[in-house]
Amino acid sequence: MLGNLVPSVQQKVLDQMKKRPKLIVLDTMNFWMDNCWDDLIEALKNVDVLTINDEEAQQLSGEHSLVNAAKKIRKMGPKYLIIKKGEHGAMLFGDDQIFSAPALPLEKVFDPTGAGDSFAGGFVGYLSNEKEISFEKMKTAVIYGSVMASFCVEKFGTERLAEITSKDVLERAQKFVELSSFDI
Amino acid sequence: MLGNLVPSVQQKVLDQMKKRPKLIVLDTMNFWMDNCWDDLIEALKNVDVLTINDEEAQQLSGEHSLVNAAKKIRKMGPKYLIIKKGEHGAMLFGDDQIFSAPALPLEKVFDPTGAGDSFAGGFVGYLSNEKEISFEKMKTAVIYGSVMASFCVEKFGTERLAEITSKDVLERAQKFVELSSFDI
Repeated sequence: MLGNLVPSVQQKVLDQMKKRPKLIVLDTMNFWMDNCWDDLIEALKNVDVLTINDEEAQQLSGEHSLVNAAKKIRKMGPKYLIIKKGEHGAMLFGDDQIFSAPALPLEKVFDPTGAGDSFAGGFVGYLSNEKEISFEKMKTAVIYGSVMASFCVEKFGTERLAEITSKDVLERAQKFVELSSFDI
Repeated sequence: MLGNLVPSVQQKVLDQMKKRPKLIVLDTMNFWMDNCWDDLIEALKNVDVLTINDEEAQQLSGEHSLVNAAKKIRKMGPKYLIIKKGEHGAMLFGDDQIFSAPALPLEKVFDPTGAGDSFAGGFVGYLSNEKEISFEKMKTAVIYGSVMASFCVEKFGTERLAEITSKDVLERAQKFVELSSFDI
């Protein structure tokens, strides 16, 4: 999991690994697109999953439609793209597959700082326990990422994440099921 | 289904009915909030479902959080509130229950005109075939509303809606299942 950092350092981390991990996820932001474009494009060639927000996906691709943005970005290297949309949830794009995850509707967002990092932690934390990584597994990972982000924003810093248990995590994941399930 | 119109006329339609329908849905917009506030508040007392967009929900309630907005609006009359969020989908609020429906990710929105009306048509059209109306049924109705809206924006005016078949509607509803289903 390459956290949101200067792209040349993200690439250096990869260069130091003797064996390629089974999954490489890179998080980045508009600042690196504005200031280190070439290094970012280079690092993107070597990762499996990119996580960015909707405006960043538009900036990186030059496309307004997120469907078209995802097509272009997936040709830059990452096989999977996650677009984080804050209170509107998150989207996962793969090969001809799209998953749309809701965000948990909250009465109050105490502090959004760290929501993206918590999402990334929940996402890779879930997948690190899985032997095989498929689109189906990634969908579940997006839900656990959303669960961790929803806890993060309830208090300052890591306060809320430090006090929750596995049971809290599972209970909240169940809330995402209730929120999005329907019959046709 | 009281379409988006001057609230005093919406109320007059209700006054003319000898028997109360099993479900009354009212659609409105910011213009009526700005210009006919009192009449709108009066009409709202007599309906079961209100459909508005996210900004209008904030204007009507004075609350930023959609969860809090829904709580206030549901005390004004409607037992159910649908908040339409365009490309971010739609939310249905009931008694301690929330449903979050995705929007179909589109490469191109040809013309968004009529999407809200198409949503309302799909929503009430589905429910009019159901004997009992529950939150579960309403969730499905929100999906069929979203399906009709997704067709509407593909061409000008009613062009696309005029050419689709029941099979097209069912196939697209299946796309919403694929888009939002996951296991935890």
